[in-house]
Amino acid sequence: MNIALLGFGTIGSGVYELINLNKGKFESNFTDLATQKSRPAITKILERDITKDLGDSVGVIVTDPKEILEDDSIGIVIALMGGMDFEYEMIKACLKAGKHVVTANKAVISEYFAELQALAKENGVVLRYEASVGGGIPIIGTLKEEMRINRVTEIKGILNGTTNFILSKMTEEMAGFEDTLALAQSIGFAEADPTADVEGYDVSRKLSILSSMAYEGIVRDEDVYKRGITDIGAMDIEMTKSLGYVVKFLGHSILDGKRDVYTTVEPVLFKAASIMSNVNSEFNIISITGDIIGELQFYGKGAGKDATANAVVGDVLYILNIVGEQNLPRPLRLNRKLNKLGTGIFKGKYYLRANLNDKESLDQVLSALETVASRKTVIVNDNHVYVVTSVIAANEFNAMAEKLRETVPEFFYARIYE
Amino acid sequence: MNIALLGFGTIGSGVYELINLNKGKFESNFTDLATQKSRPAITKILERDITKDLGDSVGVIVTDPKEILEDDSIGIVIALMGGMDFEYEMIKACLKAGKHVVTANKAVISEYFAELQALAKENGVVLRYEASVGGGIPIIGTLKEEMRINRVTEIKGILNGTTNFILSKMTEEMAGFEDTLALAQSIGFAEADPTADVEGYDVSRKLSILSSMAYEGIVRDEDVYKRGITDIGAMDIEMTKSLGYVVKFLGHSILDGKRDVYTTVEPVLFKAASIMSNVNSEFNIISITGDIIGELQFYGKGAGKDATANAVVGDVLYILNIVGEQNLPRPLRLNRKLNKLGTGIFKGKYYLRANLNDKESLDQVLSALETVASRKTVIVNDNHVYVVTSVIAANEFNAMAEKLRETVPEFFYARIYE
Repeated sequence: MNIALLGFGTIGSGVYELINLNKGKFESNFTDLATQKSRPAITKILERDITKDLGDSVGVIVTDPKEILEDDSIGIVIALMGGMDFEYEMIKACLKAGKHVVTANKAVISEYFAELQALAKENGVVLRYEASVGGGIPIIGTLKEEMRINRVTEIKGILNGTTNFILSKMTEEMAGFEDTLALAQSIGFAEADPTADVEGYDVSRKLSILSSMAYEGIVRDEDVYKRGITDIGAMDIEMTKSLGYVVKFLGHSILDGKRDVYTTVEPVLFKAASIMSNVNSEFNIISITGDIIGELQFYGKGAGKDATANAVVGDVLYILNIVGEQNLPRPLRLNRKLNKLGTGIFKGKYYLRANLNDKESLDQVLSALETVASRKTVIVNDNHVYVVTSVIAANEFNAMAEKLRETVPEFFYARIYE
Repeated sequence: MNIALLGFGTIGSGVYELINLNKGKFESNFTDLATQKSRPAITKILERDITKDLGDSVGVIVTDPKEILEDDSIGIVIALMGGMDFEYEMIKACLKAGKHVVTANKAVISEYFAELQALAKENGVVLRYEASVGGGIPIIGTLKEEMRINRVTEIKGILNGTTNFILSKMTEEMAGFEDTLALAQSIGFAEADPTADVEGYDVSRKLSILSSMAYEGIVRDEDVYKRGITDIGAMDIEMTKSLGYVVKFLGHSILDGKRDVYTTVEPVLFKAASIMSNVNSEFNIISITGDIIGELQFYGKGAGKDATANAVVGDVLYILNIVGEQNLPRPLRLNRKLNKLGTGIFKGKYYLRANLNDKESLDQVLSALETVASRKTVIVNDNHVYVVTSVIAANEFNAMAEKLRETVPEFFYARIYE
């Protein structure tokens, strides 16, 4: 069976190296004499740049999608172009053409999850997306397996390598956000436009995929409460450290009862002595809680060429393994009607730092806090006020903060994880 | 297809609850009309105590193994008796009778790994043992999957819930080993005879299973260097804490080049700010490093009724899923000739505490250390000497310590993980 690749960027070339250039152990899966002849390879790559060096003579770069869609020798298509519309249309067309699809595209999966899964089933093929969440961490396959026995009730994790690199570096160097973002951009750890990472869209897409799978109904990207990390200053790193905390960018969802889903992507403070606080740089961690198994956590590289390519090729091997078997794996249930209820279930003490730009600011901050917190610790220092509150429900604090922003524009706050 | 259970202890009854009593989602795997009729159940349980309450009328307790071995309606046998000889013979007999086997018995798997795997293959059945390592952590299945692409070069982990509970409790309470062991025994977290746990036999069996799988050749329990945790005193907990470390009981193996394997089970000091240091109580963590994927870590309950039963039932579902398919999964390669080379590859700074029982003890300790360590920090206090050395190879330090034991019998030491 031949394979086609859509896109020959970083991950695409990593996949090509594993499958065609024998980096790693792909070939050892086909060592029997009978199967060796049919060792699969990437024969066509859809790319605009036809001058790219493929390193062997097996693959050919094509520019016309029809070259892949109408080629009956191609049974698996690996979609790694990124972006939204074109890749979505290509994945649909491939499924309709009876080709199995493997993708790392979290935007497409998150947006069209139920439709694409149904389309795969209709056409008797398999859609796999292990690399769409957690890079090299085998979370998608494991979540599917655990769900065969468990009702999953909670998912939380550090799901974005770029922002975790930035926050780890800020913590290590006691540095500010802008400088650290610039550093991350200069060494290729952040994109020129970092919005999707630092504002939480990337985490939110990954969280919505995991939550849809776990809770058996569609949770959409836009259902997720999102608050980014751009307001975090060096003074916050310093103060939270002295309080014994480390700031992390957390995606978190909870299923309460049968249908009530709460989701949030926001900066959260963890005790320095915790597993989460010690997940650094581009590493990710994902925690799932099931009613039988309890909590499981999975740690690994959340991004990077080889780790992500490893996940993609794992999906390819999975498909090659079931081709010719009698029964395709049963698709996930995604049709449970879920109530998506914002952040109402989350609560905790809060840390808040505000810049005091004029005489009234301090009073404005404190009276705003008065409306939600009965007790609090207040430190005023160098035109900043730092506050740690008693336990408050997240939706109350978020609403208060939104209102406060009208009069005191510069502040940062984070829930403290208990 | 019917299932038989060998042993109705804690894990056995947990498995019975999941499969027969519909705790969890086992039944939802058979919701299609066609498969519902054939929903598998445990119909026979081998147990001495025939008065046990099964909670339903599907399962029957039998006392004669033949009742299971000669019952053609039974396709899967779950072996959870524990111990060695009888379970080993039963597993062999079941495989020979053409029955798939699922077991949690690390002693049997570790001792007869290659033989049992070959026997399964010969008889066209599957042998699964997910619950034998890491309790509820899905490490066996994941390791198999990752090895399809990666050459695994390193495994390390906290693999024993009892000793991790004891060490966590000692760290939390600044308590001594004997008192904490007694506490663990009183609440059922340690057995009356704790030798297998506290001397490292349990960890060593798990490490030998993972290492055999990962390095594709047999690593036996007796190949593993083992040093237990019974020498750790409250003063060690206090001193290492003040130095910024936490003591953990680590299983660790490394493949160097193609054939050289190094294995060790011993107390190791980790920086307080690390993931390993924050794995507490009965939780386990397992790290595997592959040449493509980098490091992956898996965290979860290493013991306990539900978590372990979850892993067992996962294996049962795996088998039910492939019954009737054309190709059984390819067995692991276990025939690579490995050189088992002790602890030669490990090195680090060492922490040592010795009791000074007479005037000569201090000199004896310091001159013994002189033979291996060029630089060291020495603290003498309350009839104890505490030393932190420069970096030393593990086999040198271990040999020195063994010799020192002849003149200064009471001391504890641990390598500091860098």
